[in-house]
Amino acid sequence: MVCGSDVALGPGKAELLEQIVRTGSLRKAAAAMEMSYMRAWTLVQTMNQCFKEPLVETKRGGAEGGSAVVTETGKAALAAYRRMEADGLEAMKPAQLELTKLLR
Amino acid sequence: MVCGSDVALGPGKAELLEQIVRTGSLRKAAAAMEMSYMRAWTLVQTMNQCFKEPLVETKRGGAEGGSAVVTETGKAALAAYRRMEADGLEAMKPAQLELTKLLR
Repeated sequence: MVCGSDVALGPGKAELLEQIVRTGSLRKAAAAMEMSYMRAWTLVQTMNQCFKEPLVETKRGGAEGGSAVVTETGKAALAAYRRMEADGLEAMKPAQLELTKLLR
Repeated sequence: MVCGSDVALGPGKAELLEQIVRTGSLRKAAAAMEMSYMRAWTLVQTMNQCFKEPLVETKRGGAEGGSAVVTETGKAALAAYRRMEADGLEAMKPAQLELTKLLR
């Protein structure tokens, strides 16, 4: 697998991390996104392999059927990703306004 | 048709405008993008309807089979769009660098 920054973390993976933070469970996070558990698991594997340290740690078993935790590295990566998005959108505004003025 | 700025001009339409500038022909522009003439024509109609003034003017007939010209408004819209992209990408760099440092 080639781990460019676009492969390692994108919109779906970022939301998955947020859902894991929220629910504490990969299964619940997947359900919240109407995504199969297998798909969510694969996304987590990709992230964990692409980053120097895992972004998500999972534990099997227990009454709740296992738990998932976003690591400190995961939180840092998520924050950087959201900042990247926000900074990009903010910087686009002046030219976007110019474009909008030309619209009907 | 709802003409939000995302509908009025996106990556495909921007490239189409550039190809029209380059070739002076909607047919050649479409061919350069491996796009059907009908599809290119539809994109031009959308742009022309969404903006206050047409972005592309077409003329039928002649030995070359008609010509297409990007108007001043078209050039202004294209420039604003490309500036919007460039400004966004530039602003994303610091957070992107942070993210990249976390990658393997």
